[in-house]
Amino acid sequence: MNTKISEKVINRLTLYHCILQDFITKGNEYISSKQIATLLKIDDSQVRKDINLLNNSGKSRVGYIVKELKKSIETTLGFAKTKKAYIIGAGNLGMALAKYDNFTSYGLNIIGLFDNDKTKIGKTINSKTIYNIKDLPQLAKEHGVEIAILTVPGKFAQNTAEFIINSNIKYIWNFTPTVLNVPDDVQVWNENLMGNFLQFTYNI
Amino acid sequence: MNTKISEKVINRLTLYHCILQDFITKGNEYISSKQIATLLKIDDSQVRKDINLLNNSGKSRVGYIVKELKKSIETTLGFAKTKKAYIIGAGNLGMALAKYDNFTSYGLNIIGLFDNDKTKIGKTINSKTIYNIKDLPQLAKEHGVEIAILTVPGKFAQNTAEFIINSNIKYIWNFTPTVLNVPDDVQVWNENLMGNFLQFTYNI
Repeated sequence: MNTKISEKVINRLTLYHCILQDFITKGNEYISSKQIATLLKIDDSQVRKDINLLNNSGKSRVGYIVKELKKSIETTLGFAKTKKAYIIGAGNLGMALAKYDNFTSYGLNIIGLFDNDKTKIGKTINSKTIYNIKDLPQLAKEHGVEIAILTVPGKFAQNTAEFIINSNIKYIWNFTPTVLNVPDDVQVWNENLMGNFLQFTYNI
Repeated sequence: MNTKISEKVINRLTLYHCILQDFITKGNEYISSKQIATLLKIDDSQVRKDINLLNNSGKSRVGYIVKELKKSIETTLGFAKTKKAYIIGAGNLGMALAKYDNFTSYGLNIIGLFDNDKTKIGKTINSKTIYNIKDLPQLAKEHGVEIAILTVPGKFAQNTAEFIINSNIKYIWNFTPTVLNVPDDVQVWNENLMGNFLQFTYNI
């Protein structure tokens, strides 16, 4: 499966994956495109089109085989290839993300948090240690971490990003409301919560 | 300005807005499309095209007038029209969102949190009271709240959503990793963090 899948399709496939997980929990063996479409309030032809992009063979007369469809999504989206990440900033948002166990099943392995607050350093949250931000360059090298999840307050975002980049981490998932100024070889993904909110409420 | 603006444009405009806010803080009076484009690593023709969608008159020989461009974005995206919301679930994520003061400047007025944890009920976070979830139907009516920001653990998401809907709240911003099953007159916006992450890391 080497075809480039669009961002919108990736987004929908992860929602299908949530639904499939839920069906497995409930003990359902089969699912139809119509059932998925109804839950997401989209057209079922869209669901079938997306699923056709997968190498999915688990189709029966009564619908897709839930477990096989789930596995097909995982294979296509590369969940199997685990990526190591740090959370930078052990505030409420950093803590919330550290507790979010779903990440692991999507191939995101959060192996630690960093902060400069001495009352937090050394503690663990969901079995993950909170390290001293000063130790980031050395630990990133030891752990082979490529991704930083940035959750510091907005006013510290740019300086912290520069420190992260100097620690040789080239991918930043930015949860701060600050647009970062970074060199060309660094990739930033802005988790633009307000943009998402405005998309949602634009027509209210 | 009645033209329907696409989700992608809304998303970019909010990022421009972050940059403009930052320029104002730094005391810069003018900004060029090239400066915005460089920060976001996009094409400056794209930036100019987006800005042309606004009723923006603040263009000078040395660039856009930062304050006027910011105001144009706010007018177009309807920041002025304040929307009232509750956060349902006063865990780490709920707390993080309650502390996120940027929401207010985007017209999102979070007027309270709800939880069922008696050790939390009655406390305040960032001047917002944590209420007993049992009081949701009555308070939603009193406060005239239309939007619920759902941050409970995934396994409680569906039941909580039903309670929210029965409290006559018809817009749910869903931060849980659960796809909600809701009636046709209810709108759900899935803040699909894993989908966003996979879009980001798909090519790593």
